[in-house]
Amino acid sequence: MIGIFDSGIGGLTVVRELERQAPDVPFVYLGDTARTPYGNKSAETVVRYALEDAAFLVDRGADAIVIACNSASAVATDALRTAYPGLPVFEVIAPAAEDALAATKGAIGVIGTRATIASGAYERRIAGPKVRVIAQACPLFVPLVEEGWLEDAETKRIARRYLSPLRQAQVDTLILGCTHYPLIAPIIRRYMGNRVTLIDSAASVVRRVLEGRGQEKTKEGQGTANRYFLTDLSKRSEEIARAWLGHPVTFEQADLA
Amino acid sequence: MIGIFDSGIGGLTVVRELERQAPDVPFVYLGDTARTPYGNKSAETVVRYALEDAAFLVDRGADAIVIACNSASAVATDALRTAYPGLPVFEVIAPAAEDALAATKGAIGVIGTRATIASGAYERRIAGPKVRVIAQACPLFVPLVEEGWLEDAETKRIARRYLSPLRQAQVDTLILGCTHYPLIAPIIRRYMGNRVTLIDSAASVVRRVLEGRGQEKTKEGQGTANRYFLTDLSKRSEEIARAWLGHPVTFEQADLA
Repeated sequence: MIGIFDSGIGGLTVVRELERQAPDVPFVYLGDTARTPYGNKSAETVVRYALEDAAFLVDRGADAIVIACNSASAVATDALRTAYPGLPVFEVIAPAAEDALAATKGAIGVIGTRATIASGAYERRIAGPKVRVIAQACPLFVPLVEEGWLEDAETKRIARRYLSPLRQAQVDTLILGCTHYPLIAPIIRRYMGNRVTLIDSAASVVRRVLEGRGQEKTKEGQGTANRYFLTDLSKRSEEIARAWLGHPVTFEQADLA
Repeated sequence: MIGIFDSGIGGLTVVRELERQAPDVPFVYLGDTARTPYGNKSAETVVRYALEDAAFLVDRGADAIVIACNSASAVATDALRTAYPGLPVFEVIAPAAEDALAATKGAIGVIGTRATIASGAYERRIAGPKVRVIAQACPLFVPLVEEGWLEDAETKRIARRYLSPLRQAQVDTLILGCTHYPLIAPIIRRYMGNRVTLIDSAASVVRRVLEGRGQEKTKEGQGTANRYFLTDLSKRSEEIARAWLGHPVTFEQADLA
């Protein structure tokens, strides 16, 4: 069973990809909504939270961990691999960086939360003599998505402001370096133009997870019900989950150590 | 010594008011930046956090507590008063509600986070046969303020969208029911017009705190250095604090139970 965690509900875009690419693979999801977001907190704090999140999923039988959160992927992956040496730990940055390198002609843009961009995690994996990287923090995208303004004029205008340096730099590939961003991909695509390849880190990581699992395991989940945990329950989270996933979700309370 | 806490740095607008109205009164500030914001979390979770915040301040010698956070004021005031029966606990909702009732000709608007508005705390204190209350959640105002877009076109546009129902309802008084909002008061005032009285909950609560302390205590702080604690330290918090308060601030790490 795959354990997936995020700072909140944004990681449900990874669940959505998993359900699309491999509907039979069972999973348990944890969203740390009592302390969301991670993107505006220090590396030390995010590492501590990520270790608690992973321990919760391992306790519930996860045999692989997906860090469905760019901020935690950027700063906490090594700590999780050290804490769980036998366990495959997938994070969302390396797969998206690889997919971007495979797609680019030489200029890659990266957008993410303030913490993800400040970490420089994407640049470290991408930058080289033949590739320019232009990174841009977009702190308002997460609250805009959570407000539900996915196609609204305000969102378009703010997207224009954040993305105009990337368009001026003529990036040919753009990494959506935050699990919330696929939900406003249409606005981003319209502004950046059709020639720019968008890399969705959720889709990239799910492909790697499934490659790692191989064929024989794809039937493992028949009869197992997927479970969804949050550290802070709310009706609004259920509404958002239903809208994003296209089916209702019952969240259970998770009490972390 | 006054203990002031908030979910993050927004409560520094209360500090700013205190420094303006009574620069000699000593205080200790705690911002729970490791778990900020509170405005998108459940009442149960916010009560738990508020009790931990208050315990930290009492341990450091606070003889009065100011809940400089509307979300926590709305749901956690009773729990704090029960936990600390001898201690004056001030919250930001009742003072602003009283000041609004004193100012209004009959139509009061309230803006705040999703949690504050959902709690109905302002309406309960204001509504009556002679007063209409129109409440509006403005979830994007906090991230816009923290992005530093205090006078920007994007903020104006979003303000127009959130505030237009209040303008149409012809409110004559508007409560800024979130400690971040005074920082965009100029934008709010311009859209709502000069005939609308803005009630700043930070200014209202500081007046009540000082009335309660009386004259004899106003000199108590000479020689005492005020202290500022955060649960998650960052350079950005120091930058914001300096911009808001007009003087540099050194934050210390707070580890809550």
